[in-house]
Amino acid sequence: MTLISEHIETDTREKILVVAERLFRQMGYQKTTVADIAKELRMSPANVYRFFDSKKAIHEGVARTLMGEVEAAAQSIANRPGPAAPRLRELMKTIHRMNSERYVGDSKLHEMVEIAMEESWEVCVAHMQLVTEIIGSVIAQGVATGEFEVSDLQTAAMCACTGMMRFFHPQMIAQCATKPGPTIDEMIDFIIAGLSPRAKAN
Amino acid sequence: MTLISEHIETDTREKILVVAERLFRQMGYQKTTVADIAKELRMSPANVYRFFDSKKAIHEGVARTLMGEVEAAAQSIANRPGPAAPRLRELMKTIHRMNSERYVGDSKLHEMVEIAMEESWEVCVAHMQLVTEIIGSVIAQGVATGEFEVSDLQTAAMCACTGMMRFFHPQMIAQCATKPGPTIDEMIDFIIAGLSPRAKAN
Repeated sequence: MTLISEHIETDTREKILVVAERLFRQMGYQKTTVADIAKELRMSPANVYRFFDSKKAIHEGVARTLMGEVEAAAQSIANRPGPAAPRLRELMKTIHRMNSERYVGDSKLHEMVEIAMEESWEVCVAHMQLVTEIIGSVIAQGVATGEFEVSDLQTAAMCACTGMMRFFHPQMIAQCATKPGPTIDEMIDFIIAGLSPRAKAN
Repeated sequence: MTLISEHIETDTREKILVVAERLFRQMGYQKTTVADIAKELRMSPANVYRFFDSKKAIHEGVARTLMGEVEAAAQSIANRPGPAAPRLRELMKTIHRMNSERYVGDSKLHEMVEIAMEESWEVCVAHMQLVTEIIGSVIAQGVATGEFEVSDLQTAAMCACTGMMRFFHPQMIAQCATKPGPTIDEMIDFIIAGLSPRAKAN
């Protein structure tokens, strides 16, 4: 019985997040109330509050799900065998594509991202740290095979990530989409050059 | 007589911009009206409109002045003699420092930047293109002496600039100031590595 009720609890939690995400997309985050989410699920607002103690907590749950999908896709590319540079490229282009689809085409979700940036920085920071770690793991594989050469792995991973800000950060993707600048492949070439073995100084 | 009246016209234009900048800093851009600016200068709003046809035009004038100071500082570093890498570092740190001082410490001016990003993109884009050109000129000097090695100068300049977004872009400076990430020197090391001669492939 315990297992079944736990399963139901998890299930309800997930249902709340799925409905919340849909309403945030349709109506915008600001306009969606906990009562709207409850009504859609045919439950009382009090029942929703049993699972999430605030609208902010629901918002963080939705954000975690969306970010978790990007993390899973990045991790699965990092786990593949083969040379590091092409995998780093694919991984970076995947993050860019997923973030563009999720947050930029959809102006209502874009609003959600802006609020996450302001109100739920811990969630965003945790996501960026995980993405940096995944990128760092591919760089480490490249260092092991002599494809890459870095003096400090953690710094190299942070710089590679930070250098891609125009293509990773939802607000920057939206702001820069139609502005002059390098293509994503040119930017990744530049990052890979920065990770590649140097000529020995004369 | 023509010269004198032209001089007076330029002078009035500049006075309007100086007063407007001060009021934007004190009261914020949204709250400052053309009437406020005129009153401060003891002239009629109609007279202000002889020089600037809208508040947006005044705003662009103020933004141009602020950006022009950054461009002048960057250009003067680019014009100096000596090795390219340390000058590129100094130039990039100067842009970061000036943009931090101007737009981040001062929350009212930060509002002005956000509006410039939305309403006066041409002004911002022109500034970024000029900064990219100045950075490109230092990279070109480094290529000429063999310090740097790039396949396409324009692309290298755009990538070097774009890679510094966390440290150049006023909104990103503000958003990332207290967040995990590389130091500006680490980021510049990474950019310089990307510009440095590669080891020949085996």
